[in-house]
Amino acid sequence: MNPELSLQLDRVIHEKGRLAIMSMLAASAELSFTELRNALNMTDGNLTTHIRTLQEEGFVAVSKSYANHRPLTTCSLSAPGRQAFASYINLLEQIVRQHKPE
Amino acid sequence: MNPELSLQLDRVIHEKGRLAIMSMLAASAELSFTELRNALNMTDGNLTTHIRTLQEEGFVAVSKSYANHRPLTTCSLSAPGRQAFASYINLLEQIVRQHKPE
Repeated sequence: MNPELSLQLDRVIHEKGRLAIMSMLAASAELSFTELRNALNMTDGNLTTHIRTLQEEGFVAVSKSYANHRPLTTCSLSAPGRQAFASYINLLEQIVRQHKPE
Repeated sequence: MNPELSLQLDRVIHEKGRLAIMSMLAASAELSFTELRNALNMTDGNLTTHIRTLQEEGFVAVSKSYANHRPLTTCSLSAPGRQAFASYINLLEQIVRQHKPE
């Protein structure tokens, strides 16, 4: 048993809401703020706060543009974000293996 | 991609320090407070707070006794704690599989 594994988990990604956001972004090139909000059933304020935290960490890039004369905010994982998420998932995999050896 | 998986993770277990404690207890019949503290490199106060939270949730049983005239506090997973931890690990496994399909 190596409890260090859990303690190594990236604190920014580990929060459940941000983990859900990173999961969705890892599976797409980019997603709009609205797509994220609807899929995650989060309030605007909650999603905005999480996205800002991920942006400040350099994990998520946010671009603002217009579509049909309406503001459109899209989010995508940065290269460091994709790398950090892959490391996070690798750690989860090791934790699972400790408890469910094949 | 199913972001619901992340959002289903048990909030009490998901906190990194508590996840580390639950991981250690899942692998043992019981552990003393001192063994946990030394393995996890936590302060007494931090470990006490986490153990209390897990105890209040009904996941961890704490017993106090004496060994060699010294107080001895031991912790173990309750049956509901073991069940909740198994469910948590199963969810982690599904999250990993979403991102690392075999």
